[in-house]
Amino acid sequence: MKKIDGGVTAAKGFEAAGTAAGIKYKDRKDMAVIYSRVPCKAAGVFTSNVVKAAPVLWDKNVVEHSAYAQAVVINAGIANACTGAAGYDCCKKTAERAAQRLDVSEDAVLVASTGVIGMQIPVEKITAGIEELARIKSEGREAGRMAAEAIMTTDTVSKEAAVQFEIDGKTVTLGGMCKGSGMIHPDMCTMLGFVTTDIAISKELLQEALREDVKDTFNMVSVDGDTSTNDTLLVLANGMAGNEEITSKDERYGQFVEALHIVNETLAKKMAGDGEGATALFETRVIHARTKEEARILSKSVICSSLTKAAIFGHDANWGRILCALGYSGVSFDPENIELFFEGEGNPSQGGGNPSQGMDRRIQIYKDGAAADYSEEEATQILSLPEVRVVVDMKMGDCEACAWGCDLTYDYVKINADYRS
Amino acid sequence: MKKIDGGVTAAKGFEAAGTAAGIKYKDRKDMAVIYSRVPCKAAGVFTSNVVKAAPVLWDKNVVEHSAYAQAVVINAGIANACTGAAGYDCCKKTAERAAQRLDVSEDAVLVASTGVIGMQIPVEKITAGIEELARIKSEGREAGRMAAEAIMTTDTVSKEAAVQFEIDGKTVTLGGMCKGSGMIHPDMCTMLGFVTTDIAISKELLQEALREDVKDTFNMVSVDGDTSTNDTLLVLANGMAGNEEITSKDERYGQFVEALHIVNETLAKKMAGDGEGATALFETRVIHARTKEEARILSKSVICSSLTKAAIFGHDANWGRILCALGYSGVSFDPENIELFFEGEGNPSQGGGNPSQGMDRRIQIYKDGAAADYSEEEATQILSLPEVRVVVDMKMGDCEACAWGCDLTYDYVKINADYRS
Repeated sequence: MKKIDGGVTAAKGFEAAGTAAGIKYKDRKDMAVIYSRVPCKAAGVFTSNVVKAAPVLWDKNVVEHSAYAQAVVINAGIANACTGAAGYDCCKKTAERAAQRLDVSEDAVLVASTGVIGMQIPVEKITAGIEELARIKSEGREAGRMAAEAIMTTDTVSKEAAVQFEIDGKTVTLGGMCKGSGMIHPDMCTMLGFVTTDIAISKELLQEALREDVKDTFNMVSVDGDTSTNDTLLVLANGMAGNEEITSKDERYGQFVEALHIVNETLAKKMAGDGEGATALFETRVIHARTKEEARILSKSVICSSLTKAAIFGHDANWGRILCALGYSGVSFDPENIELFFEGEGNPSQGGGNPSQGMDRRIQIYKDGAAADYSEEEATQILSLPEVRVVVDMKMGDCEACAWGCDLTYDYVKINADYRS
Repeated sequence: MKKIDGGVTAAKGFEAAGTAAGIKYKDRKDMAVIYSRVPCKAAGVFTSNVVKAAPVLWDKNVVEHSAYAQAVVINAGIANACTGAAGYDCCKKTAERAAQRLDVSEDAVLVASTGVIGMQIPVEKITAGIEELARIKSEGREAGRMAAEAIMTTDTVSKEAAVQFEIDGKTVTLGGMCKGSGMIHPDMCTMLGFVTTDIAISKELLQEALREDVKDTFNMVSVDGDTSTNDTLLVLANGMAGNEEITSKDERYGQFVEALHIVNETLAKKMAGDGEGATALFETRVIHARTKEEARILSKSVICSSLTKAAIFGHDANWGRILCALGYSGVSFDPENIELFFEGEGNPSQGGGNPSQGMDRRIQIYKDGAAADYSEEEATQILSLPEVRVVVDMKMGDCEACAWGCDLTYDYVKINADYRS
């Protein structure tokens, strides 16, 4: 199992493209396509929000009722959410035109949108964009990168990941891209994620692997607690690796699940670290919890706490806010019995300078119901690193979970007070 | 039932004081006392956080096991939370000294703290503060105001309310004060609230009236979603109005509940409007919901949404975020069927100028699954008023609820990144 440089075009037979179709203002890229040369098994998980965007409704239908999918058309700039019948019609027109231009079945076209809620997408811009995407789509590293850039909104960097492993002596590749920076509190998961693979696997197992893995990856990310109307994570498997199709939960399925987890976790962490206005990736790892579900609830409560997030931005070891967030999570525990640690990774963002400061560092900050004997100065140094981790030892069992968020900054407010302007 | 100018000294027989005891840095007021000349029935509701501050544990014991309470000693600056056995001992020493100096029973002394979590309070400063408070405490408007100022932390204004009504031909007065600006998401209920009244009522009915009313008042407020370790709301009733004691849910009980609701709601709204960094009070009123509980969940989900709060700060009618927050609240509904309105009150903060712009204004922004035909300019004007309200018509039943929050601003981040510095 090795990580490789790549995205949605890393697996065999997948092509992609990104272009500027004029949906965003100015000449910024805002449309992408993913295309497989052969039909794919498709799996998807979608927002739990009662208010679902039109593309979510469209894709749920395709994933549930079509035997195969072969293309995904994605736009940024307008979310096509809260757009009524006209919004759904836009999805249909998108699928029609893509089917025609890519020579695939209409019910094999998935669509995804991200951007402002409540505006209608100008359909003529979408159809013109499809013409261009069909013309320029291609295999190769650069095509995947173009697609990853075209789906960004307030993201500051594009997000891709890929792994390779062997099954039946065949090389299998799994690659993905995602976008997401604000309105991020996936609960499936305006997070859009797309994973492509050349593995041969049954549709049922593909869906199950995805459904299980998001619980520990995308669903453990929060930027602002707002679960979007558009969250979508799709996996396309086209079978071109040439392995015998996986149809039971054998060792090969285990390998696929491990690979999927690596790609999903890598993408999820990239999303959290690039949260709107973020200066740091903020991770909370809960260990020795009674149950996996309690570990998830506790870790997510900490990374969602506005006060804790603001303290991380201020490099302030205000651990009382962490204990407070654990306390209101809904999980019962004895505060006197737990322990807290701060860990930091990476090179301090300020000044660059001495690389020896960039080594992993760890201090205990709380035990026996009160502050541990730590140095505020050292705590502040750790909290100034680009990856900050809180480790919570519940000392109650042997389950653990990890959640990812970011700090709360002036720029988060600025971005979201001005978003539509 | 009439609102009057007043606070915790408005009711007969109550005295108060505020002083600077040196717990906060510089010479800012940081200690207050409330004292009744005769013993009071006491009721209290406290934080639901598993991590409870020492004063919360102390007060729960007094409210549950003491027949009477007669004094409350409050400090700001240090929360006495996550302080272990030493923290509880500080509460005991506070009660001992107050009992001695005020000539009341030790188990009739309530304590409350707000401020930084995890630090120990210097007990000698508390005892010296009690000496001073005992010396200067008095009746009258000014004494109540001093106490209200002394319990502030990041609050920018002190918060008081009082009402008067008649029972059995006797004038009954109810007055209160509260503090709270950050770590505010009461779920009883660092919000501290204190209500005093001269009504004669049984302890059981006093507690029940309080427990029921906070569901629609303090528990419907959120500044940042963080439920504090210290939330405390206490009511003291000393019976000095001279009415026959209320011991059943008669008409007089109904009058008391109405008065309590007015004081609690007034204090709760003042707290929300003075949320850390806030420039506007942000209210969400859900009408025609199926159940009261669903109305509460929906309204609270909107005022808790970081994205919606940032949009209010930006005076941006980004109603998609409101619909999104309703959608992930956990309540099921048909998004095509609901309607949204913006309302605004008060004089525009900018410029002052023309008072005729300060009249109440209302526009419809969403119906039939899509944007209503409104003017963005008018929406922006309404969202620039100091009190902004979203009205959500669920069209599903006849229940309603109201929740109060504030906008999310640069100053919220600044205050909380720097809080301990």
